[in-house]
Amino acid sequence: MNSIVNHNELPLSRAEFEARLRQVGVERYHDKHRFHDRLHSGGCTMDEVQAWVINRWQYQCSIPMKDAAFLSRCHDPDLRRVWRSRIEDHDGGVEDGGGIRRWLRLAEGVGLDPAYVASGRGVMPATRFIVDAYIRFVRDEPPVAAMASSLTEMFAPAIHTRRIDGLLEHYDFADRETIAYFRHRLTEAPKDVRFTLDWVLNHAVTRPDQEAAIAALTFKTDVLWAQLDALWSAYVDGNVPPGAWKPGEAQLAARP
Amino acid sequence: MNSIVNHNELPLSRAEFEARLRQVGVERYHDKHRFHDRLHSGGCTMDEVQAWVINRWQYQCSIPMKDAAFLSRCHDPDLRRVWRSRIEDHDGGVEDGGGIRRWLRLAEGVGLDPAYVASGRGVMPATRFIVDAYIRFVRDEPPVAAMASSLTEMFAPAIHTRRIDGLLEHYDFADRETIAYFRHRLTEAPKDVRFTLDWVLNHAVTRPDQEAAIAALTFKTDVLWAQLDALWSAYVDGNVPPGAWKPGEAQLAARP
Repeated sequence: MNSIVNHNELPLSRAEFEARLRQVGVERYHDKHRFHDRLHSGGCTMDEVQAWVINRWQYQCSIPMKDAAFLSRCHDPDLRRVWRSRIEDHDGGVEDGGGIRRWLRLAEGVGLDPAYVASGRGVMPATRFIVDAYIRFVRDEPPVAAMASSLTEMFAPAIHTRRIDGLLEHYDFADRETIAYFRHRLTEAPKDVRFTLDWVLNHAVTRPDQEAAIAALTFKTDVLWAQLDALWSAYVDGNVPPGAWKPGEAQLAARP
Repeated sequence: MNSIVNHNELPLSRAEFEARLRQVGVERYHDKHRFHDRLHSGGCTMDEVQAWVINRWQYQCSIPMKDAAFLSRCHDPDLRRVWRSRIEDHDGGVEDGGGIRRWLRLAEGVGLDPAYVASGRGVMPATRFIVDAYIRFVRDEPPVAAMASSLTEMFAPAIHTRRIDGLLEHYDFADRETIAYFRHRLTEAPKDVRFTLDWVLNHAVTRPDQEAAIAALTFKTDVLWAQLDALWSAYVDGNVPPGAWKPGEAQLAARP
């Protein structure tokens, strides 16, 4: 949020603004990260896949907290009613459903104890710091920036499609059940994007607000990229930090 | 939260702890406030009823933000899934339903423009300060205290029953439609209370945590009481603060 903006600069046209937002994805979305190339091309060991599932759980499970942080500062009941569906999509109902439960089916499918993954016990501290920064951003930054940070979902269907194809082609664990999370996101994310992109384009009408929205989306791509850098360093290069899951280690669900 | 607690003190038994929580209601719940005596006995002028509806809107409309603030710090998906129904009860769906919309039907019934009430334009600054303090409390205090602050709902069915009877008996505006908000709360609140009371009794097991829960519930009774004191001062005693709705004033929904 440190970009220097000339407050007298003319606003971008709606088309220019949308193009700038989309350009963030072209340049920085984590579909370009080398870990995803490795994962989708079948190059990951099962240890690496497991590490990815364990750490990405932290992100998945925190998304409803992030969206609740947005609701907690949203004075507009109509906006709250629409935004709430994001929490429903991820958390699901009291008994069943929801992206989080689908992620734990993936965890089971790759040979992990779902209770261990759900405990968050093996997550790298770096992953926690990154995810917490995202929650704080959405709680503290101006609403239009908080909303714009979710727009990485514009770029998500392409990576999910590639992931579904890549996992099914290259890994024995991949089946209809284990990839259910990604299939659901193919329909959930575009629904959220349509609403949020329109909202941001309509409400960020000064150049400083437009630049803040672009910076927020850039920040979010950093949140996604940094998680994969930490994962690569720990589990591909083999420098697992203290406290994080070690490949082959017995999985203890209880916190110490 | 400033009560001095001896950390070596023995925990209260479960029954003692629940009794202490219930005692807070006996001593401090706003069913004992003189404004409610006046309202329920037919003693309020329509100006006073309107002022109550306008200001209480601020509280009603902020409850989902308060509950979202709790979700935003709740790492337990199971707890989030249960707690989320509070937001659903108040906000309702994208198209209809929800306590907030029912409150606006009451607003219309007492002769107010619902769009004006929903704008929050006539709310007293004091009401805003009080309600904001509640949201901040739930966002910042330990989770068990945040949850315990909702337990004023233990005392709510009695006041809602009395209010429904009192309004129907004494005021022309009261009918099935305008009092729908209170009728719904008769079933919603006890469902939430059962879950939350059990949770607090089970999780606040040290004496300091038990005292923090009791202090949180006390704080919440203060939040409710202070709103009625401000209302009485402004609209019964007639000292309407700058910026607040004035009886008879044209209702302008748009913010200045």
